[in-house]
Amino acid sequence: MATIKVHGSPFSVPTMRVIATLYEKQIEFEFVDINLRNGDHKKEPFISLNPFGQIPAFEDGGLKLFESRAITQYIDDEYGDKGTKLTISDSKKKAIMRLWLEVESQHYDQVSTKLVWELGLKPLFGIPLDTKIVEENEAKLDSILNVYEKRLSESKYLGGESFTLVDLHHLPSLHYLMKSQIKKLFESRPYVSAWVADITARPAWSKVTAMIPN
Amino acid sequence: MATIKVHGSPFSVPTMRVIATLYEKQIEFEFVDINLRNGDHKKEPFISLNPFGQIPAFEDGGLKLFESRAITQYIDDEYGDKGTKLTISDSKKKAIMRLWLEVESQHYDQVSTKLVWELGLKPLFGIPLDTKIVEENEAKLDSILNVYEKRLSESKYLGGESFTLVDLHHLPSLHYLMKSQIKKLFESRPYVSAWVADITARPAWSKVTAMIPN
Repeated sequence: MATIKVHGSPFSVPTMRVIATLYEKQIEFEFVDINLRNGDHKKEPFISLNPFGQIPAFEDGGLKLFESRAITQYIDDEYGDKGTKLTISDSKKKAIMRLWLEVESQHYDQVSTKLVWELGLKPLFGIPLDTKIVEENEAKLDSILNVYEKRLSESKYLGGESFTLVDLHHLPSLHYLMKSQIKKLFESRPYVSAWVADITARPAWSKVTAMIPN
Repeated sequence: MATIKVHGSPFSVPTMRVIATLYEKQIEFEFVDINLRNGDHKKEPFISLNPFGQIPAFEDGGLKLFESRAITQYIDDEYGDKGTKLTISDSKKKAIMRLWLEVESQHYDQVSTKLVWELGLKPLFGIPLDTKIVEENEAKLDSILNVYEKRLSESKYLGGESFTLVDLHHLPSLHYLMKSQIKKLFESRPYVSAWVADITARPAWSKVTAMIPN
């Protein structure tokens, strides 16, 4: 197997998404830490890996990718015989799983990215938070979690009856949000709360959080 | 084949994305026009098809889906033997195609949605436009199209050497943006301009635009 390289930061939600997938698949990789404070993601050599200047970027031999959700799907497809199977094969069930992949990307992530920045990352950089942005996105997340609660009352995981990329894609933001005031939105809903406890307890996920410096 | 139903509006970008896919695949469908002015997308029976209350929703026999990009991928997978093949099979090339599917979803669409609303849809509703939002998003689109120009100088289409869902997912917003001041951003770039001319000239796309009332 060619050397797999992940270029990113252990603090970054999309980087963690890719690393969690590699640990679930039990695939060895080399981690290249990109210095964001130094702006290394906006310069060569990184900018040749991702013209948008955003982490992570990914290499598997000669194949170079960016966009975390494209990388996780590639890994699960290409290394289907290794570790946890993270997608569903049956065509109708796969369509439902894809729908929830899109819900994460188009609904949940739009809101969680703003909340993670305000409540998880700004404090690390010593930047004051924007209360209005927090309130707006907390209300939006509350509505989204109503949909999740109903879904999880009918299906063990968001994408179907087994743990898939849909659930995995949520893990990195949960790492930050469950340590913030937002925790109550998850804990007040029985099915959502049980789902969070289940997916954050996965051994592969512990290996990701162990990479984050205190 | 079970009856396929698309619930949506011919003015809606995500609805057009699904219909364009059905025409490319030469699949018959029933169109259910949802009255947005009347708020029918926020009420039963529509809300049972999509708990987020957004168009389109899709039915294929007993399978019910929402999220336009999940629907288009389902159609291409399920009806692989019909019409135009809209995805790539080779695993490495498919990974590159998925990367560009994500670029549309995570970069282009975030900006084009705001510009379509301001410059394409607000005038239809007689709502004054927000100049600041237009300027901000025009600048962002300009940067994104620099990346597209480079990509299209190296690859005939965004996803690879053939027309795929990546290109198709851009068509509905182009319908609005090419009739607005934003047109200049596309026309000033030779490769982007040739790509727009190519993909908007597809017969399947003409059938979609013919559905939009004047």
